Amino acid sequence: MHILVLHGPNLNLLGLREPGIYGHQTLADVDRLIESMAESLRVTVDIHQSNHEGVLIDHIHAARTRCQGLLINPGAYTHTSLALRDAIAGVGLPTVEVHLSNIHSREAFRHQSWIAPVAIGQISGFGPESYRLGFLGLVNYLRLPQP
Amino acid sequence: MHILVLHGPNLNLLGLREPGIYGHQTLADVDRLIESMAESLRVTVDIHQSNHEGVLIDHIHAARTRCQGLLINPGAYTHTSLALRDAIAGVGLPTVEVHLSNIHSREAFRHQSWIAPVAIGQISGFGPESYRLGFLGLVNYLRLPQP
Amino acid sequence: MHILVLHGPNLNLLGLREPGIYGHQTLADVDRLIESMAESLRVTVDIHQSNHEGVLIDHIHAARTRCQGLLINPGAYTHTSLALRDAIAGVGLPTVEVHLSNIHSREAFRHQSWIAPVAIGQISGFGPESYRLGFLGLVNYLRLPQP
Amino acid sequence: MHILVLHGPNLNLLGLREPGIYGHQTLADVDRLIESMAESLRVTVDIHQSNHEGVLIDHIHAARTRCQGLLINPGAYTHTSLALRDAIAGVGLPTVEVHLSNIHSREAFRHQSWIAPVAIGQISGFGPESYRLGFLGLVNYLRLPQP
Amino acid sequence: MHILVLHGPNLNLLGLREPGIYGHQTLADVDRLIESMAESLRVTVDIHQSNHEGVLIDHIHAARTRCQGLLINPGAYTHTSLALRDAIAGVGLPTVEVHLSNIHSREAFRHQSWIAPVAIGQISGFGPESYRLGFLGLVNYLRLPQP
Amino acid sequence: MHILVLHGPNLNLLGLREPGIYGHQTLADVDRLIESMAESLRVTVDIHQSNHEGVLIDHIHAARTRCQGLLINPGAYTHTSLALRDAIAGVGLPTVEVHLSNIHSREAFRHQSWIAPVAIGQISGFGPESYRLGFLGLVNYLRLPQP
Amino acid sequence: MHILVLHGPNLNLLGLREPGIYGHQTLADVDRLIESMAESLRVTVDIHQSNHEGVLIDHIHAARTRCQGLLINPGAYTHTSLALRDAIAGVGLPTVEVHLSNIHSREAFRHQSWIAPVAIGQISGFGPESYRLGFLGLVNYLRLPQP
Amino acid sequence: MHILVLHGPNLNLLGLREPGIYGHQTLADVDRLIESMAESLRVTVDIHQSNHEGVLIDHIHAARTRCQGLLINPGAYTHTSLALRDAIAGVGLPTVEVHLSNIHSREAFRHQSWIAPVAIGQISGFGPESYRLGFLGLVNYLRLPQP
Amino acid sequence: MHILVLHGPNLNLLGLREPGIYGHQTLADVDRLIESMAESLRVTVDIHQSNHEGVLIDHIHAARTRCQGLLINPGAYTHTSLALRDAIAGVGLPTVEVHLSNIHSREAFRHQSWIAPVAIGQISGFGPESYRLGFLGLVNYLRLPQP
Amino acid sequence: MHILVLHGPNLNLLGLREPGIYGHQTLADVDRLIESMAESLRVTVDIHQSNHEGVLIDHIHAARTRCQGLLINPGAYTHTSLALRDAIAGVGLPTVEVHLSNIHSREAFRHQSWIAPVAIGQISGFGPESYRLGFLGLVNYLRLPQP
Amino acid sequence: MHILVLHGPNLNLLGLREPGIYGHQTLADVDRLIESMAESLRVTVDIHQSNHEGVLIDHIHAARTRCQGLLINPGAYTHTSLALRDAIAGVGLPTVEVHLSNIHSREAFRHQSWIAPVAIGQISGFGPESYRLGFLGLVNYLRLPQP
Amino acid sequence: MHILVLHGPNLNLLGLREPGIYGHQTLADVDRLIESMAESLRVTVDIHQSNHEGVLIDHIHAARTRCQGLLINPGAYTHTSLALRDAIAGVGLPTVEVHLSNIHSREAFRHQSWIAPVAIGQISGFGPESYRLGFLGLVNYLRLPQP
Repeated sequence: MHILVLHGPNLNLLGLREPGIYGHQTLADVDRLIESMAESLRVTVDIHQSNHEGVLIDHIHAARTRCQGLLINPGAYTHTSLALRDAIAGVGLPTVEVHLSNIHSREAFRHQSWIAPVAIGQISGFGPESYRLGFLGLVNYLRLPQP
Repeated sequence: MHILVLHGPNLNLLGLREPGIYGHQTLADVDRLIESMAESLRVTVDIHQSNHEGVLIDHIHAARTRCQGLLINPGAYTHTSLALRDAIAGVGLPTVEVHLSNIHSREAFRHQSWIAPVAIGQISGFGPESYRLGFLGLVNYLRLPQP
Repeated sequence: MHILVLHGPNLNLLGLREPGIYGHQTLADVDRLIESMAESLRVTVDIHQSNHEGVLIDHIHAARTRCQGLLINPGAYTHTSLALRDAIAGVGLPTVEVHLSNIHSREAFRHQSWIAPVAIGQISGFGPESYRLGFLGLVNYLRLPQP
Repeated sequence: MHILVLHGPNLNLLGLREPGIYGHQTLADVDRLIESMAESLRVTVDIHQSNHEGVLIDHIHAARTRCQGLLINPGAYTHTSLALRDAIAGVGLPTVEVHLSNIHSREAFRHQSWIAPVAIGQISGFGPESYRLGFLGLVNYLRLPQP
Repeated sequence: MHILVLHGPNLNLLGLREPGIYGHQTLADVDRLIESMAESLRVTVDIHQSNHEGVLIDHIHAARTRCQGLLINPGAYTHTSLALRDAIAGVGLPTVEVHLSNIHSREAFRHQSWIAPVAIGQISGFGPESYRLGFLGLVNYLRLPQP
Repeated sequence: MHILVLHGPNLNLLGLREPGIYGHQTLADVDRLIESMAESLRVTVDIHQSNHEGVLIDHIHAARTRCQGLLINPGAYTHTSLALRDAIAGVGLPTVEVHLSNIHSREAFRHQSWIAPVAIGQISGFGPESYRLGFLGLVNYLRLPQP
Repeated sequence: MHILVLHGPNLNLLGLREPGIYGHQTLADVDRLIESMAESLRVTVDIHQSNHEGVLIDHIHAARTRCQGLLINPGAYTHTSLALRDAIAGVGLPTVEVHLSNIHSREAFRHQSWIAPVAIGQISGFGPESYRLGFLGLVNYLRLPQP
Repeated sequence: MHILVLHGPNLNLLGLREPGIYGHQTLADVDRLIESMAESLRVTVDIHQSNHEGVLIDHIHAARTRCQGLLINPGAYTHTSLALRDAIAGVGLPTVEVHLSNIHSREAFRHQSWIAPVAIGQISGFGPESYRLGFLGLVNYLRLPQP
Repeated sequence: MHILVLHGPNLNLLGLREPGIYGHQTLADVDRLIESMAESLRVTVDIHQSNHEGVLIDHIHAARTRCQGLLINPGAYTHTSLALRDAIAGVGLPTVEVHLSNIHSREAFRHQSWIAPVAIGQISGFGPESYRLGFLGLVNYLRLPQP
Repeated sequence: MHILVLHGPNLNLLGLREPGIYGHQTLADVDRLIESMAESLRVTVDIHQSNHEGVLIDHIHAARTRCQGLLINPGAYTHTSLALRDAIAGVGLPTVEVHLSNIHSREAFRHQSWIAPVAIGQISGFGPESYRLGFLGLVNYLRLPQP
Repeated sequence: MHILVLHGPNLNLLGLREPGIYGHQTLADVDRLIESMAESLRVTVDIHQSNHEGVLIDHIHAARTRCQGLLINPGAYTHTSLALRDAIAGVGLPTVEVHLSNIHSREAFRHQSWIAPVAIGQISGFGPESYRLGFLGLVNYLRLPQP
Repeated sequence: MHILVLHGPNLNLLGLREPGIYGHQTLADVDRLIESMAESLRVTVDIHQSNHEGVLIDHIHAARTRCQGLLINPGAYTHTSLALRDAIAGVGLPTVEVHLSNIHSREAFRHQSWIAPVAIGQISGFGPESYRLGFLGLVNYLRLPQP
């Protein structure tokens, strides 16, 4: 089983950027967390970060035949990118949306997700742990017999 | 460490009610899942279900001095109960909100949560697995040194 | 055939409360009307009134295996209770929503019903006669071969 | 006692049109239902169908001195015609609004009625039975001493 | 100079209908008022009433080459008919919109006029006198040299 | 019979200001028009212009016992001044609201009047002629026996 | 193959009315264009114009058994007529909606179409050419094997 | 004179809950304040707190014949409970609504009260003093001859 | 302790204006009430009424160094004046907002206060008694040790 | 005559993605359709697809001096990209917007186009045929003498 | 070249009022800044502050023939005064709107300016420096040859 | 001191694109203006233009350690890009937002800026001069001792 993990815009600043909201761990720390989780669950991962909406879409398209699932933190594109939503719906990969911060307790414009309606589910608010919970949820979902 | 787990209105129908949305497992199945998770994480749990907003609030008040955290699936009260929100904010217990179905892909009136802004985070869409992920997230949060 | 009849909040005040809107008949009068209707249609009824949202939900759950249909005047919960709506959808009983007053000619917040979308239909404005028409409509519906 | 019954736009297609929503009975079947109801209640009826807003209004005006009540299924004009509403308010005839389908469970634009606020009441969702219940409700209303 | 005067839906009920809002004068009284005004201003008039949106539009089209101005009380079509608005804009006749009642002090849905933006001006609230003021305003406008 | 005429903010610029919208006549021209109208109708007038909301209110209060009616062009205060509305409602003088331009064909924020609901009626779009029509309408209203 | 072509309200003014928006060709010119297109595609056409909502609906009903498709420019009824929408949905004829002007670049109230959701598609902005493109699109659609 | 005093949901946490918003006094302190006020005004009081909407409604119903007035802090039900509003309107007791915090300076969803429109008045922002002012206002109101 | 008391626009009409809403006492009566209250509480007062937004602001500015608190009935400026709000926030005086009528049960545009968010609290609905309760609340607040 | 044809985000998935909505033809099939159309109309084309908003904008800029027209299916950027709209308005090329699916019968967020207001027109709902109709419409437009 | 500089309501409190938002410089400091800027640019200035909307309007009217440009900080009237907007549009003086604080990062009701649409431009957020930048921008604009 | 200057989408068309709105100067002219300003203020600049949201974000990230401030004209991304906003908030560089045209007097969708709330301030409407004023404001801000 092969999983695509995507980090959206500004997540490369993690640890450097607004630690009051996003914490002190860097993106490399998060990636190590995901990789060790993947190893313990015996799945392989491809991890990418990009600030470019188009690059994120290209990665999702490329995963259509190469991966079985998608774990994505779409960052600010969560709230503005219908193209990303269409990409996920288009490739038909089971997708889990994660957020470091609790988007539902921040500004009103962060409450709505264009991505969640085409995902299995959404996890937000647990910091880097959101990725671990989301990864676990995605892999368990993929291993369950689907109706 | 002692955790209060609350199931909101209509969750007693689980397995009996709209399996297309909520799956075939009963609430007893879910409770066993939580209990086994609790055991493996070495925490104890109190589990209650009620269709009464007031009873749920009373449970939360009672937990103020008896529990360290709250895992809640507020059911339809998610979208209508400010009193439940005030109860959670009032007792100050770290809280995780979980939903069986992906509330963000259902009717518009299920997209907004009055509870999430006073919770650590929200997990929705993974079926009974949402409880397991939420429980794990809550316990890890409680075990982390908080800033 | 066994029918559950539920009167929501404040209907116990009937006859005592705002006769300009709700008329002079008491709830006991209304119940006698329903019972005589039931007798003439050769069905049996269970009738309850409660001001408690949770109690109404509990009655609906209990009816899941005991009744074939539900006649409900949800009172003010019509406009605020998603939990009641989920209860009705959850038990899957054919349901008719009735109102004494014409809710569509009163304050704007009484125009929208959370219950009607999960009911067979809605009848409002005929005073106690709304119950009789609703009862008749429900029984006829249950006696028709459904597609 | 003489009652005007009006069928609004597209109801002439009944039985031919979208049976999933409106059922298989034709308008002639519905009219026979109303006529037999009228006979058993010993009232006479005038029944008209028109796709023209103006023709419906003209019928209502003509009924001002000839009829004691109006039973109307305004079809799509329910949601768009203030002129129809003004006609009903203008002639001052007690009016009952009926709908075959449950308008409250369909598209949002069908939830609001311009007619209901000037009617005695509204009945929706019972198929052709809506007409029978509405007719019964109207006649009973007219036979009651009004305050 | 020849002026078209149009009375919209339900105005034929004038004097019969809701005298609390519209007064006791009949449409024939109003027409005599207009005719005497026309005579004293030495202009001729064509006066029509219709409950049919299409008939009103046909009258306006016919006036394109026969009349120099239009005085219209569009009744409830004021608030719902874009087709009437397009007809007025299409024929390009200077138009004055009048209302018997003060539409700005009635229900919110009567505050917006689709017609006023394509008219010279709007007069409302003076009862039958609104027609006289509107007629005077229209004729004076037509007699002024336009820039 | 004594009438108060009030010109609201910026009307002192008339003739100087945006002639494309407001025409070339000055406020003095308009006042002469009103005075000659008053003379021919045998009523007396008090005319004031002010850019100060408070001054306009003071004038209205002073008119409570001195005048029988109010003709007002509230200018931009039409759309923002609840205090002006309360002043008019407070003194209880029959009031006519006039506008030089057709406010219903200008920017959306000029469509709503806070004043019109407490006035007899509103006249807009006829340039200085609006004052003449409004004055005539007001005097005729005052001379009619009121119900 | 037989096609119904309907021109909605005010289209009879074409060429006479607001040429800046609608161009200089008359409706007769447009009809000739359609007829020559029909001939070259070897289909026959019935063409009607009406300013009456009800007449348009009657034409659509009559086409139910006589035509295979409908090409309609609903004019201003595009934005106000749910009855027309229901008529099209009711007869189930494949329908193409066309507009001379680009409705999406005009006033906001012209952006929404009640008709488009029950049509195959919508074409707007090409002047009389919109009819030719729409006709071509409709005929090609009808000649394709539908899934 | 006998007064019912009701404390709504979460007020039992007073002193324990969010002291930054609600202060350090407990509900028992507040009750003593009310009781001493009652004594000095020579009226008797019944004081209840409940987190259950239904229980609050039951108390209000019971007061219909036993009390002359109602002092209520409806807590979060202020903003969500139409049933509570209907109960107050139903029993017809003069009612004063009080709030410890200034609800108008908190989150937008706390600005609207469903209760205030059926109360004599509303007092908010004075901490426990709000109860004293409200009690005083209610008793003075009851002692005044009402028009 | 010195308190500024401000009466906003139209309050000079008190007793003369709409007694159904505002009662029969004049502003002089209200002022005597306040003065006697002040005397019994041993504080001094400055009382002003103005219909001018700017004059009210000037009074507030002048009170910055001369007074310890502000009691204000902002009349209609409650709902329209951000400048008044900024003045209160700017001088930083503890402020209590009072209203004679219950603004929450009147027109929707009177439900929102721009002033309340910068005040200690709001009292509305008790007639002249609102001033007494507000004065008492303000003085008690000023005499309490503030956190 | 040289035409730029642009396919927006996710259109590279055509034939692979959601065939229920978008059909079974691939983008290469669509391109062949356009090319054969171009040949028969004796114009040349440049065709590009990109998932990158910026790349689409760069193509449009480059076409400013090289092309005479633009045919664009902006995909999801239709509803979110003001930058694309500004690019089209900026280069001033006659533009036709096409969509495979009928965007007006899909989710509400797909009904609004930021592009259409700066285009000649919009065609949606005909599958790959939308491109052919749009291409034909664009070329005819370019060959007409423009006013 | 002569420039009018206007300070709106509450700006006389500058330095005294909410220094966290508005800084510590007084209005006299700001005026000296403007005067020295004026001197260095060789233009003369008239500077006024008022809390009265009407006084600000009077100043603008007076400047119509005496000044070549207007620099205005409308304070809270920015968001509420259409009369001020009409005054600026009426006199036709090139106008620059300035704000000390960044109005776009404060409460939502401060984001909209009624003044900006009739100004050359808007500058906000630079403290007293906003005046200097605005003054410079205005003078440069006036010295440029306008198209 | 080193400043990053960013030009957003379509600004490369400057001088070529819609000169009625944006003027005749090219982007190279603007850059020379900025460079000469920079020289006279003795700061250095990095200037980039891109139509790619992702490229703009990458530039901002790169500036985090290399620059002391950011001057940005975000073009159409002003109104749609939360990712750009997060980038600016993330790197924490003092930022000034500038616009050539007065965005507050253009289409409604250009009135809201997602960027301004995380900037020092916003300057719009002065053409290329906006950049000069913004640059000056930014440098002065950076040279001031910040609280």
